[in-house]
Formats: sequence, structure tokens, C-alpha cells
Amino acid sequence: MKFVEQLDRAVEKNNSLLCVGLDVDLSRIPPQFLNSEDPIFLFNREIIEATKDYVCAFKPNIAFYEMYGVYGISSLIKTIDHIHSVGLPVILDAKRGDVGHSSNAYAKAIFEVFKADATTVNPYMGHDSVRPFIDYYEKGIFILCLTSNVGFKDFQIAGAEEPLYKSVAKHVKEWNHYGNCGLVVGATKPEELKEIHELVPDMPILIPGVGAQGGDLESSVKYGGKRAVINASRSILYAADPHAEAKKLRAEINKYRVK
Amino acid sequence: MKFVEQLDRAVEKNNSLLCVGLDVDLSRIPPQFLNSEDPIFLFNREIIEATKDYVCAFKPNIAFYEMYGVYGISSLIKTIDHIHSVGLPVILDAKRGDVGHSSNAYAKAIFEVFKADATTVNPYMGHDSVRPFIDYYEKGIFILCLTSNVGFKDFQIAGAEEPLYKSVAKHVKEWNHYGNCGLVVGATKPEELKEIHELVPDMPILIPGVGAQGGDLESSVKYGGKRAVINASRSILYAADPHAEAKKLRAEINKYRVK
Repeated sequence: MKFVEQLDRAVEKNNSLLCVGLDVDLSRIPPQFLNSEDPIFLFNREIIEATKDYVCAFKPNIAFYEMYGVYGISSLIKTIDHIHSVGLPVILDAKRGDVGHSSNAYAKAIFEVFKADATTVNPYMGHDSVRPFIDYYEKGIFILCLTSNVGFKDFQIAGAEEPLYKSVAKHVKEWNHYGNCGLVVGATKPEELKEIHELVPDMPILIPGVGAQGGDLESSVKYGGKRAVINASRSILYAADPHAEAKKLRAEINKYRVK
Repeated sequence: MKFVEQLDRAVEKNNSLLCVGLDVDLSRIPPQFLNSEDPIFLFNREIIEATKDYVCAFKPNIAFYEMYGVYGISSLIKTIDHIHSVGLPVILDAKRGDVGHSSNAYAKAIFEVFKADATTVNPYMGHDSVRPFIDYYEKGIFILCLTSNVGFKDFQIAGAEEPLYKSVAKHVKEWNHYGNCGLVVGATKPEELKEIHELVPDMPILIPGVGAQGGDLESSVKYGGKRAVINASRSILYAADPHAEAKKLRAEINKYRVK
């Protein structure tokens, strides 16, 4: 099944645009997990089970698995299997991008080895660096457009006639022959999100930055469209009660949803 | 020891600016390796041993290891150990870049888990996405500037007043407080390479694209300065005689070197 259909089904089934980011930091997880054989996977499994009825997807960021080497990569693969066993799609946040034959290798890793349903890609190197991902036409490809960190100012809004992020959005619209592209736009940029969504109204938009990074939830939901994927990571993972926290955030998102 | 000193020493010891890219493709390596327990590592070891007297560094691209999952990551770690055992520096080509706390995790993976001496970073997300790498002040950080693939046209040369790649070079010059930054500039862009090197005359410049991608060797060496790191991957790895091929390419590079 195509990623966008998986996403639409999960959005409908769980009545939710919430995506939980699985960015595990062993120094922050409850101590009972640390004595087990695979603390990362067991913690993730607990989070997945606690929140699976309130989300439309899970988003592990591969950085937090790579930092534990071979062991972390094994935990990532087990985590992705578990997400699939509860019937939800996986967006593997990897922000890759390289010359064509290297991007081929990355896409193979992400979709065939790690078995993700979607990923994030960095557009700096242009079309031939993104295309090997897009060519997996059943998978979802979220291309970085306008990000939620402070560094967005350095390059993404530069350009006298047209800022870089707008040029990226327009290019991705052109590249979207298979209808499997999406964009990443931070929750910290509501006006620009509105404008981007109007340019690509059917495209899923992955919106990080609502929790710890202080983005605006109301306008992110209002302006992001029916495929706005609102990501929260640390605010759910390290909540006293992740189940209650996910339920609460879903309700808050649904208050502002345009159906 | 700082990466730049490691690099300068290797350049002097082996009288070479050549860097060999270790981008292993199991479908292209000689059949005798395939029946062994760890074909990737054994092939790499053979290449490292055959070329170690003619290079200033080795550059594995992590994409080609990730595509073999946990096994590939193990082979990468063994490969890096072997490069260190012959006394040469490792540039781990990974092109990472993410929000600060995720870039922290990537930097930790690259420098502490995989134990690379230098890496490549994508600048799209700006300073706070690059800084966690730079903060490893003994390591070398090559930031993508103007790449050798055809997609460079899409965004890197856009910008009416100042093309993006030039803005990246100027920003990196500002970010270089520890003197550990470098840039990636494709061998396919000699005029721009000249101009970039003049802007940052002491910075190492990683120059891919001379072999299979058809870049211009003579002008890359002439314009890249004394820390031009000329990368060749497939043209050496899959040569009938990698030892002879590396020796030949070093001699060709040295013809044009400005000492």
C-alpha cells in the first residue's frame, strides 16, 4: 500500500494527526528499562503500546540509534517491526541526500533494510540526489523545506527574489510525478506554512517543533491541511504518563482541525 | 592530534593529495572475496594495503555500509580501525545535518562510535545544525558547498545577488573559530573552486568528482590549494590493479601541484 494511503487510513482510524517521534535518549528513560537486555527497544515498545490509539504515525530519528552503533541499529529494526505489528506507518527521520549512486544506497538502506514507509530527505544537492528516494514510488518522501530550528535563517530564507525554502517547495511540486512527495515545515513558521500548503494542497506536511521547540500548535493545524502530520517527541516520551499526554495532545490538535 | 595536522603529515609523508573513497558495492568486487565471512572488510583491507603509500586519507561513504544493515556497520567500524592501524586519517562521508540535539547524536555516532577523524556535513539547516560537529574541535568538518552532481544547479547556484554556495562558504569562514572547518567543492567546477579557495586559503577542500564523474583534475589541483584533497573512488576500487592505479593518479596529481 502507498504511504499516503497508509497515512490517510491511520488518520481516520485513530482520528489523529499526531505523530510521535521516537528519539530515545538512554539518559532520560525510566531506570527500570536500563537493566534489561535491550532498553531502547523495550522503552520504545512501551511508548508505542501506550500511544498507538492516538497517533497516525511514529517517527524514529535514526541519529539516536546510530549513536549506539550496531546495537542501536538492531534496536531500530526491532522498533520498526513493532510499529508495523500494530498497523501504523513509520517515518524514518534520516535527512539523507547525496550524489545519485550514494542516494541509491541510502534509499535501499532506509526502505529495504530498515523497512521504513517514509523518510525525510535534504534537498541541498538537488534533484538527482532526491530522485533515488522518490523512485520508491510507494514510499513517502518528506523533503526539508523550512525547518523549526534557529539556523533556518542562515540559508532557507535567503534569496532576494525568492527565498530558498519557496524554491524548494516549487521544485518538489515539479518532482512529484508519483504523488509520493511531502515537505517538512516547522511549527514555528505559521504564515509560511499557510503559503506552502496553498502551493501543494494535497501533499503531506511533516510539522515538527510543537513541543520542546515552542511552535504554534493552533496555526500549524489550521494551516497545514488535512495531511498535516504534527510531530511531538520529548514532550510525550518523557511525560509522567505518555498515554495521557498523547490523548491530550490529540484532543488539542482535533480542536483546530479543518475536516 | 587535530585532523588538519594528521592530514598535513600524511600529505607530506606520502607526497600525496589523493584520497581513496571506500564505497564498496558487493556486486562489483572480485568473486574471491564473496565466499569469505566479511567480504566488505576484506576487500577494503586489500584496497587499503594496496594504496596506503600513495594517499593522504581514506573516505568511506557510510551509505554503502548502511545498505547492508548491522553487518555493514560492523564492517565499517573494522575498516576504520584498519585505516588507523596504517597511520592514516579517515574522512567518514555522511552528509548529516539536523536540529541541534539530533546533530549532537549524529556527531557522537561519527566521532565516538565510528571513530572517524573528519566528516562531511550538509549546511541546509544552518549554524546550529553544523555546530555540534564543529564543537569536536580536533575533528575535521567538511561542509557541502558546491557539489559535483548535476543537481547543483537546482539550489546551490540560485540567488540573484549571491549564489547559495558562496553564502555557504562565507558562513563557514565565520563559523571556523577552531580552525577545523573545510568545504566540499566538486572537481567539475574549476572557476568556482579558485574563487572559494581564495576566500578560505587555509581550509582543506575535499574535491570529489575527478574519476567517474568527469571532473577536471588539472584545474582541481591547481586551484584547490595545498590542502586540496582529491577523492577518487570507483576508478581505483574497481581498477584491474588498484596499487598501480593509485600510484599513477598520485603522479598525475603531483604534476599539477603548487607547493
